[in-house]
Amino acid sequence: MLSTRVTAGGRWIKFEEKVEDGGERWSAPHVPALPLHSLFQLRTCLQKGTMLLDLDATSFKEIIDKALSEQPEEAELQPALRERLAALLLLQPQHQPTKSLLQLLAELGLSPCRGKAKGRSEPRTQVSKTPLKEQLRNRFKKKVPLGAEAAHLAVGEVEFLEKPFTAFIRLRHGVSLGSLAEVSLPSRFLFILLGPPRVKAYHEVGRAMATLLTDELFQRVARQAEHREDLMAGIEAFLDELVVLPPGKWDPGARIPPPSHLPAPRRRWAEERAPQFLPAPLQAPAGIPLSTTAGDRASPGHPRSGEELQRTGRLFGGLLRDIRRKAPWYGSDFSDALHPQCLSAVLYIYLATVTNAITFGGMLGDATANMQGVLESFLGTAFAGFIFCLFSGQPLTILSSTGPVLVFERLLFSFSQDHSLDYLEFRLWIGLWVAFFGVVLVATEASHLVGHFTRFTEEGFCALISLIFIYDSLKKMLSLADAFPINWHYRLDNVTSYSCTCNLSSPGHSSAGNDTSLPSPLAWQPPPTPAGLSRTQCLDQGGHLLGTSCQYVPDVTLVSFLLFGGTFLFCTALKRFRSSRYFPVGVRKLVSDFAVILAILASCAVDALLGLETPKLLVPSELKPTNPARGWVVFPFGANPWWVCLLSAVPAVLVTILIFMDQQITAVILNRREYKLQKGAGFHLDLLCVSLLMVVTSVTGLPWYVSATVISLAHMDSLRKESATSAPGEHPEFLGIREQRLTGLAVFILMGVSVFMAPVLKHIPMPVLYGVFLHMGVTALNSIQLTDRVRLLLMPAKHQPDLAYLRHVPLRRVHLFTTIQLLCLALLWLLKSTVAAIIFPVMV
Amino acid sequence: MLSTRVTAGGRWIKFEEKVEDGGERWSAPHVPALPLHSLFQLRTCLQKGTMLLDLDATSFKEIIDKALSEQPEEAELQPALRERLAALLLLQPQHQPTKSLLQLLAELGLSPCRGKAKGRSEPRTQVSKTPLKEQLRNRFKKKVPLGAEAAHLAVGEVEFLEKPFTAFIRLRHGVSLGSLAEVSLPSRFLFILLGPPRVKAYHEVGRAMATLLTDELFQRVARQAEHREDLMAGIEAFLDELVVLPPGKWDPGARIPPPSHLPAPRRRWAEERAPQFLPAPLQAPAGIPLSTTAGDRASPGHPRSGEELQRTGRLFGGLLRDIRRKAPWYGSDFSDALHPQCLSAVLYIYLATVTNAITFGGMLGDATANMQGVLESFLGTAFAGFIFCLFSGQPLTILSSTGPVLVFERLLFSFSQDHSLDYLEFRLWIGLWVAFFGVVLVATEASHLVGHFTRFTEEGFCALISLIFIYDSLKKMLSLADAFPINWHYRLDNVTSYSCTCNLSSPGHSSAGNDTSLPSPLAWQPPPTPAGLSRTQCLDQGGHLLGTSCQYVPDVTLVSFLLFGGTFLFCTALKRFRSSRYFPVGVRKLVSDFAVILAILASCAVDALLGLETPKLLVPSELKPTNPARGWVVFPFGANPWWVCLLSAVPAVLVTILIFMDQQITAVILNRREYKLQKGAGFHLDLLCVSLLMVVTSVTGLPWYVSATVISLAHMDSLRKESATSAPGEHPEFLGIREQRLTGLAVFILMGVSVFMAPVLKHIPMPVLYGVFLHMGVTALNSIQLTDRVRLLLMPAKHQPDLAYLRHVPLRRVHLFTTIQLLCLALLWLLKSTVAAIIFPVMV
Repeated sequence: MLSTRVTAGGRWIKFEEKVEDGGERWSAPHVPALPLHSLFQLRTCLQKGTMLLDLDATSFKEIIDKALSEQPEEAELQPALRERLAALLLLQPQHQPTKSLLQLLAELGLSPCRGKAKGRSEPRTQVSKTPLKEQLRNRFKKKVPLGAEAAHLAVGEVEFLEKPFTAFIRLRHGVSLGSLAEVSLPSRFLFILLGPPRVKAYHEVGRAMATLLTDELFQRVARQAEHREDLMAGIEAFLDELVVLPPGKWDPGARIPPPSHLPAPRRRWAEERAPQFLPAPLQAPAGIPLSTTAGDRASPGHPRSGEELQRTGRLFGGLLRDIRRKAPWYGSDFSDALHPQCLSAVLYIYLATVTNAITFGGMLGDATANMQGVLESFLGTAFAGFIFCLFSGQPLTILSSTGPVLVFERLLFSFSQDHSLDYLEFRLWIGLWVAFFGVVLVATEASHLVGHFTRFTEEGFCALISLIFIYDSLKKMLSLADAFPINWHYRLDNVTSYSCTCNLSSPGHSSAGNDTSLPSPLAWQPPPTPAGLSRTQCLDQGGHLLGTSCQYVPDVTLVSFLLFGGTFLFCTALKRFRSSRYFPVGVRKLVSDFAVILAILASCAVDALLGLETPKLLVPSELKPTNPARGWVVFPFGANPWWVCLLSAVPAVLVTILIFMDQQITAVILNRREYKLQKGAGFHLDLLCVSLLMVVTSVTGLPWYVSATVISLAHMDSLRKESATSAPGEHPEFLGIREQRLTGLAVFILMGVSVFMAPVLKHIPMPVLYGVFLHMGVTALNSIQLTDRVRLLLMPAKHQPDLAYLRHVPLRRVHLFTTIQLLCLALLWLLKSTVAAIIFPVMV
Repeated sequence: MLSTRVTAGGRWIKFEEKVEDGGERWSAPHVPALPLHSLFQLRTCLQKGTMLLDLDATSFKEIIDKALSEQPEEAELQPALRERLAALLLLQPQHQPTKSLLQLLAELGLSPCRGKAKGRSEPRTQVSKTPLKEQLRNRFKKKVPLGAEAAHLAVGEVEFLEKPFTAFIRLRHGVSLGSLAEVSLPSRFLFILLGPPRVKAYHEVGRAMATLLTDELFQRVARQAEHREDLMAGIEAFLDELVVLPPGKWDPGARIPPPSHLPAPRRRWAEERAPQFLPAPLQAPAGIPLSTTAGDRASPGHPRSGEELQRTGRLFGGLLRDIRRKAPWYGSDFSDALHPQCLSAVLYIYLATVTNAITFGGMLGDATANMQGVLESFLGTAFAGFIFCLFSGQPLTILSSTGPVLVFERLLFSFSQDHSLDYLEFRLWIGLWVAFFGVVLVATEASHLVGHFTRFTEEGFCALISLIFIYDSLKKMLSLADAFPINWHYRLDNVTSYSCTCNLSSPGHSSAGNDTSLPSPLAWQPPPTPAGLSRTQCLDQGGHLLGTSCQYVPDVTLVSFLLFGGTFLFCTALKRFRSSRYFPVGVRKLVSDFAVILAILASCAVDALLGLETPKLLVPSELKPTNPARGWVVFPFGANPWWVCLLSAVPAVLVTILIFMDQQITAVILNRREYKLQKGAGFHLDLLCVSLLMVVTSVTGLPWYVSATVISLAHMDSLRKESATSAPGEHPEFLGIREQRLTGLAVFILMGVSVFMAPVLKHIPMPVLYGVFLHMGVTALNSIQLTDRVRLLLMPAKHQPDLAYLRHVPLRRVHLFTTIQLLCLALLWLLKSTVAAIIFPVMV
């Protein structure tokens, strides 16, 4: 790669950057569009001008002297002219500094007019032999790729010349030419074109040369060329590959921004291009019915796609291969986590997991008469998650209770009650059977079946889970309106009629809470109240509340909704901040990485400032079973008849299928090709971990756990790596995910000690966390192609983005596919709302 | 303009549209980027192939026959081959229909597989002589500009040919060739290139020919060419102007979207391009210190820029010229208003004006002890606005009370009270003097001074007024929190302690409303309340309210904030919907035009559904002076000493300056070049109208009126015209504003009858209208370049958009200019907050 320089001002690393005419600044990088005739002129110049290949020289002066003396005869210059030319060329070029915003503002404050004076009056010095201080300090250096060489182009009009002087010089070795280039780099190529004044022509020829020298194929030619003819052939090859823009259809003054995707140098103008990949990093790479191009995962050390799911034919063969694949990475699974981004990921996922544990714990407690409650949910999540992150094949996975398991527990509990069976013991046996079946599935390499999942299945599953996330967060918010009802019929004028008193005298009369809509609220006045009893005191003393305002809670619901919406919008805005134009990249990245944490903190601060009694995150603070009737260990025999052990195998089959499907679809989604995972998946190992954890959680009576799609996706999303330094104009590349075990481990360790963090956590309002859930659901939904295709449904064809699959698949079929997928999704949603939810992962 | 056809599928109107390989659809229009060598191949083809210029033929068959028979000798085809070729060429081409979204969806529902079968099995018919039904019905036709001709390109591989057959045919007259083209158009040029199979080469040559034929300069050449050489020269000229994209810097498969700005055909590659105009329609055209290019307003019938402000040197010369300029448009000022957009504008501006009248009326009433109240404000606005719209030079202006006038009235009223003068009579004399001075200013053409206002002045004024709008709407919202206070210390547990009772017994004890923060609310219990008295009844009977909940109003403030934010976001989202990709342009335009009305209606519906007592828009419903002490006419003599008439001239000078500046700066902003106004301004006429209205409003004791910047800008913004039909890929052009008098007249007629519309208007919550105000302020603020430059302050240089002035002005100077402007703005803001506000327009 080369960095070049033209006296008129410009530099090329990959794309062109100009010094703006009067702007004293670098333009944004753009594709160097050239007028065609300047290329032809350049060809003529090279054909006729001086050409020195493999020149031995160590300084710029030496080069200039040799170039001037080795002129072809017909273009020979007079000695006097030659000296003037040499003096001109040896002047120190003015470099346009790359300034940061702060530098610029500081300068602005100090001397607003300094820039004007500069460069006019200062006497110009000669090129120095050693790099200048500014060169070494130049911040631009970090944008230049390692191993780059500089090429120098001196192009311009010289009044004393009567015919143009052209020289193309290649040095034998890369030599650092002192203060010639903007940053100190070894130089190899030089091009000089000076001639009598002609409008702009030289400048365009110089641009053409620069563009040529930054072309990867021409570079190779120029390095190896032995004669002038080789170089000319290189130009011809370059001309052959040119794309032209017709005049009148394109404004030549407009600058084309660098494309997000460039063709590989070898494949340029290959006979038929493969469909391009979409720029959005989470988007699916290829069209629907098109098979995705294989071999795209050819990053170093990465297993070939699909290798994880190939059958070995031997018992536990897949598992062994998983272990063999993952073992070499084990050390780096910890060392790779040393990055501030991981801290943000830990906090974000921790809060999401805590909220999830509380939600599911509450629902499980409700379903099982507190045989499994919030505390069990906490301990179980902490323990299972920790073990899984430590030993699993894909440690980016976050375990959680899931919907189908919840439905099963509910059914199991009521079945046990109806038939007077001991629920926990029954469940223990089911768990043991499931673990056994799981190990059998691992041994027989059943996981290879997931290789048959198509995009249709994956997307359906992911969309459904995301929609459930969104739906649940909204439902939770609406249920707040039930918990803290608003008196929509409140009238300011009737303020005197609203009150709530404690009635200790007539406990039989308990309909007070129901007469919400009195025809005339004024007709009713509260009876005398006994001396100040608070609500709890009153209810404790067996009284009941009487009055028109008892069942209403003002403001809390609305503030909750404001916090909910605010958190969601703030999260989304901060996440998007990464791709905004404001502030330097570093700041934006930091803000975007910590978006969720910042949003939570801001919302908590607002809530604390307002001081209203919004519902808060309350974690259990004592380590004892939620239901005092149970202990910490479930004994396998004693409470139920012996045949229950065997009978348990029947429901266990159902649970096995359920857990297998739930676990593996999530695993497939997380190990998708577009995440560019380097360390490979471990489908068999993951399943083994989940199965063995079933044993422990069944024995201790904790909930069962499988991979949670949405939280795991959020986890991966918060660990995205992007290339930091890239040539100006190149888009930062998505490099992959920080694959490590430490964030997961930290999350679950925090989870375990949450019991002691209750005083801190109780300041976090629930609506804020629901807002985060909504954000997670929306992010996950946006990450699938289905969402894009649903959007296409609403777009007229001509406004649709130029997606690869739209170029190849008829729109009608795309729409048909989308419609069928949506119908399936609707069907699944309906089923999910019924008891059939238990078999839902099986149906996808 | 030409529409062309290639057998491989494609059409060119201005930009290229391809039929996607398997997509069975038209691609999005894009710049036709060609491989360079295909242009060279085309040149060879034209040099060697058949060329028939000015062929007389009336049908496609005739053309084909003649072309095949007039082959040059060396390329002569055998008769058998010739017949097969003719038969092939005469086959009816398959046209890719342009379908609407609805058609596509309907098709999808009916027969999902039909599209697949089509085009394969159907026997292909010959080109028919008359246009087909589909052709006539084709919706694409309306995209083709009037007077367009079709050109036909038949390019492809034919297995039985051994050498290529090329023909370029120009018909003497444009002839409709039946079903050949997609839509029925006269055809003039035909190009045929058939040859033995070679990969894709012919297709690219065909694209090159199509691109060439859509080039405006080449078209002219091709129409006038007499020999083959003329055509070749045309191609050479075309080649000379080409822009090339280097390989490796650009993916040739990527499609370049049509640019928003195209060079004029004559000026292409002019020696030095003028700075480009920014695409955003409201943005300022040129850089800061650069003079804007003159003569840009060269639309038909439009006066030369600045003509409105040139001095004639004669008494009332400017006024006469204004009248002479505007009179010819008077008829069209009414006929031009017949468009649904105007309906939306009327409703939007009406609601804004009503809200403004109520706000200012309230404040005036407060300042003048109701000598001027809300009703006066209504009547005055209606009357003054109506007259102004009927007779003024710029009827898009909306009159309103403004801040400085309000400050003046406040000072005048307190001065009158302090010196026992009759306020209304004093004010009458001032008004008469101001009117007199105004007429003098008109007579002496003082308005030409506004020609000296710079962008600095205009933007400063506009920014300040917009900021005041934003600030006021937020302040109003916060004042709601005072009117409906929230009990932030509400605790659910203390519900029994909150009550409010009417205390009739001890009227002396009136501190009930103040003990908001009782240390323990439980310590206090309300005394027995007399039988159900409402708040009003209680206060009417001389009682006072006693209790902890009396001064609080639950939920109203929060719902107000939700409505406020919701209206603002909804307005903004709907306005932006115009530039989204969803739904056809027509729908988007309609939604965007009615954005504000839709947002208001939606918010009102939400408010009505919730049913809470939010503050509503209450307009006076009786036609009598707010203060009963005054009548409808102010008599000039009687109440004050005679010398007050003369003394009034002193404050009148101040008011005159104030009104002159306020009026004229607004007028300059409204008549800016970028709005492309066709009917010209009328600075002198406007000032005359305002002056004469002063007489009437002074005599009747109504408020004084000048042009209101923000509402007038909103008015213009809601009347924007854009070109509807344009070639695919062309951006809709901003055509100007619907300049007419009817919307303004309708607004003020509605304003006048508002008194009778009180029952309808009272359903509109005030927070919704404040949300609209916020939207108006933000829109106005976004319309000025200052805002863009403030954004630049926060952007690192490399991320800044490619604005014209950034290419030419050093960034340091841009920032300096912005900073100075911001400092001035801050200073103005500080002054505005003091009594000095009265002189504020003078200082800008």
